[in-house]
Amino acid sequence: MTNTPIRVTVWGENLHEHRSERVRAIYPLGMHETIAAGIRDELGDGVVVGTATLDQTEHGLTEDALGNTDVLTWWGHLGHEQVSDAAVTRVHEHVLSGMGLIVLHSGHESKLFRRLMGTTCSLRWREAVDREVIWKVNPAHPIAEGVPDALVIPRHEMYGEYFDIPQPEELVFISSFSGGEVFRSGCCFIRGTGHIFYFSPGHETYPIYHQPEVRRVIANAIRWVYRPERERRRSVMSPLGWFE
Amino acid sequence: MTNTPIRVTVWGENLHEHRSERVRAIYPLGMHETIAAGIRDELGDGVVVGTATLDQTEHGLTEDALGNTDVLTWWGHLGHEQVSDAAVTRVHEHVLSGMGLIVLHSGHESKLFRRLMGTTCSLRWREAVDREVIWKVNPAHPIAEGVPDALVIPRHEMYGEYFDIPQPEELVFISSFSGGEVFRSGCCFIRGTGHIFYFSPGHETYPIYHQPEVRRVIANAIRWVYRPERERRRSVMSPLGWFE
Amino acid sequence: MTNTPIRVTVWGENLHEHRSERVRAIYPLGMHETIAAGIRDELGDGVVVGTATLDQTEHGLTEDALGNTDVLTWWGHLGHEQVSDAAVTRVHEHVLSGMGLIVLHSGHESKLFRRLMGTTCSLRWREAVDREVIWKVNPAHPIAEGVPDALVIPRHEMYGEYFDIPQPEELVFISSFSGGEVFRSGCCFIRGTGHIFYFSPGHETYPIYHQPEVRRVIANAIRWVYRPERERRRSVMSPLGWFE
Amino acid sequence: MTNTPIRVTVWGENLHEHRSERVRAIYPLGMHETIAAGIRDELGDGVVVGTATLDQTEHGLTEDALGNTDVLTWWGHLGHEQVSDAAVTRVHEHVLSGMGLIVLHSGHESKLFRRLMGTTCSLRWREAVDREVIWKVNPAHPIAEGVPDALVIPRHEMYGEYFDIPQPEELVFISSFSGGEVFRSGCCFIRGTGHIFYFSPGHETYPIYHQPEVRRVIANAIRWVYRPERERRRSVMSPLGWFE
Repeated sequence: MTNTPIRVTVWGENLHEHRSERVRAIYPLGMHETIAAGIRDELGDGVVVGTATLDQTEHGLTEDALGNTDVLTWWGHLGHEQVSDAAVTRVHEHVLSGMGLIVLHSGHESKLFRRLMGTTCSLRWREAVDREVIWKVNPAHPIAEGVPDALVIPRHEMYGEYFDIPQPEELVFISSFSGGEVFRSGCCFIRGTGHIFYFSPGHETYPIYHQPEVRRVIANAIRWVYRPERERRRSVMSPLGWFE
Repeated sequence: MTNTPIRVTVWGENLHEHRSERVRAIYPLGMHETIAAGIRDELGDGVVVGTATLDQTEHGLTEDALGNTDVLTWWGHLGHEQVSDAAVTRVHEHVLSGMGLIVLHSGHESKLFRRLMGTTCSLRWREAVDREVIWKVNPAHPIAEGVPDALVIPRHEMYGEYFDIPQPEELVFISSFSGGEVFRSGCCFIRGTGHIFYFSPGHETYPIYHQPEVRRVIANAIRWVYRPERERRRSVMSPLGWFE
Repeated sequence: MTNTPIRVTVWGENLHEHRSERVRAIYPLGMHETIAAGIRDELGDGVVVGTATLDQTEHGLTEDALGNTDVLTWWGHLGHEQVSDAAVTRVHEHVLSGMGLIVLHSGHESKLFRRLMGTTCSLRWREAVDREVIWKVNPAHPIAEGVPDALVIPRHEMYGEYFDIPQPEELVFISSFSGGEVFRSGCCFIRGTGHIFYFSPGHETYPIYHQPEVRRVIANAIRWVYRPERERRRSVMSPLGWFE
Repeated sequence: MTNTPIRVTVWGENLHEHRSERVRAIYPLGMHETIAAGIRDELGDGVVVGTATLDQTEHGLTEDALGNTDVLTWWGHLGHEQVSDAAVTRVHEHVLSGMGLIVLHSGHESKLFRRLMGTTCSLRWREAVDREVIWKVNPAHPIAEGVPDALVIPRHEMYGEYFDIPQPEELVFISSFSGGEVFRSGCCFIRGTGHIFYFSPGHETYPIYHQPEVRRVIANAIRWVYRPERERRRSVMSPLGWFE
């Protein structure tokens, strides 16, 4: 109901891009820049999008940066253990206070996501050439808006069940892989006042963040996880009759 | 905590068996008898299993029969509209009062299941020769006990999403099909004090209820849906201080 | 993301208002008109609000009227059984297809709500003078936006647990009553593509729909249940490879 | 289906008992011994119950002790920060692998519970003399078996909403307090294969763990959280066709 743009920070560890020519060919400016460009294309004036990477001071996740971020997206893999505990604690607190979070693909085993979920977030995987088909199981969910009934990713790494997460508050997408596996690929969680969306597509060796339907899902998710207010939770003593 | 056996009634419409030689070859005594035999084999002294069919008086679902049933299993397809509204109302009330219910395969579009769910229970389908693989997404659930991580049904009709049901209280199984579709194939619901499990395998032209892993799931589900007590719910006026 | 106003129809059975001077004194134009006025005040240009009542042809719920309604609100009590099954079936289908629905107070035992829930929707009640306090258990939910932590209704009928509904997809409010009871007073459900909110305040003998915080909740709920698209669900045969 | 007794370890920090004569008068052997006695009385041969306390080596929570524990109950308050991170990590891993956990009262802010939930677990509180009434909102849940509709705790500390936890997989009890607050007082969670029950009664200055209905709830919960198997989850590479 407001026209203030949503301030998005796209976080990428930006390691594969420097180590693999194949990845660099697909994402010459880094995966984070492609993800950011997709969000800008989809949401236009509705967002202001910046990026941050692992190699920056405090990984670009200072108190100040987080205070100016409404929605954070997270892609990490090789560098999970390089993210400092202090940064994870800061981001965790901001999420619980209402900052939106979108965790992408291999971010499932990041310190941040595991800390939010409280589980191992482990899964079955295979780096082969499976075709993934993403199906809507909650077609009226805002994150599924404008997404085809069967979203096909021609080539992808397999992520399969059992995916060790708490049962999502809302399950939006389930994927099949040509090898026969299934995966809960689009999952909504609420923690504190923070809204979290996990979306599994995005292996670095395929041009998945260039794919229009994938961009659409991420853009929808930004609107869904966004909350206008931020509030820290702590236990509060309430004397008898305080509300009267 | 009791040794009283669970009283199970296996309901089958018993129509395909009389119309198709192919079905009769697989289920010479009717699907209901094969399902019942599987339950007896799995649960032994823990159950007393009877059967009922569409052609019986009141479809074998009299007030008396339901009063003596702890768990009802339901397989129907061609005869959905032949089931009288009065019988559906009776079964519905017993389920809400605590009778366990297991709805199998095409039972998803029965009057009974639709009335319990409040939705159309429609789905995507294809009568071809898909391979179905059933995956556990809640491995500690009692219904998944002893079930392999990947339960393969070599040939089956495809049932795919979107499956128009309320979000299940607990999702136990998700299936993939070789054609690429996925399906929430094992779903737990609680309605009133009644526990309900929907399990999608069981197209009549394949010997699915002879398969040991499928029998195991149904047996586990009987124990999960079983509740020792039955209680009718109605609105009750409670004067101030009634509980003191 | 669009500026098209949401078309709201406020349905009221409009019986108490004609039978009780006390009710008429609070709601001289009928409860439905007060509810409608509150929605207009809160949402302004964002809505176009009409009303419909039991005594109209087809209770004002013709196929045409429903086709032109984005969100329906429902208050009924004495007249539950006077609502025709045909009208209930029509409204039910529209909800499953995406029309938003807000069920208020004694609407919990309407044919419509029971059909959507699949349960008895019975509860504990007492027509005395309890103070009700409504608490947020999901403070970041859009329906709780701008609502105080403790919303006090000075005098109200008691509605208490056990409330025989399916576990809500999202529980937003829980109430206490001065007699000691509790009640899940703000419950979100999704059925098909329809979004449903049940909100328990609104006994006819108290001026509850004049209370600003109550109006705010209803207005928030209208935005939450609204879906821009309407789609009928039915089972669909999908040949192998249909999505490729 | 087995007669092997469930091995329960009742963990208590055992600090208030040594600092407050009032607490010692109620729990002369420590709260943990009263809780343990209640479990033995309720479940008899079905359990073997031991205890462990903060002052023991590794708080009595060695790898060996946890390996021989099927269900752990946890009461802590003053000593939350004295529990070593290493012990919390060990318990956390055992819970995710299938060890049952019951968290009591002020255990809501223990490191362990916060790590499992991923949230602050903060709440509203008041140390006054409220009457608490505990209501069943899922009457067929095994944890509610044999529990009265209104379980009255004559004097208790108030715990009120907003309670900052993830939405429970199953909500069993909601409490009211005479001051007007409400609280989700009986909450089921599944994390990994571990089943967790949070139950809020048990302030140290009242004889709550002597109360028969409270003992009954804890005994029911022990059976509900118990899982016969323990399995560590980790990501697993699955080659194409591995299940065939």
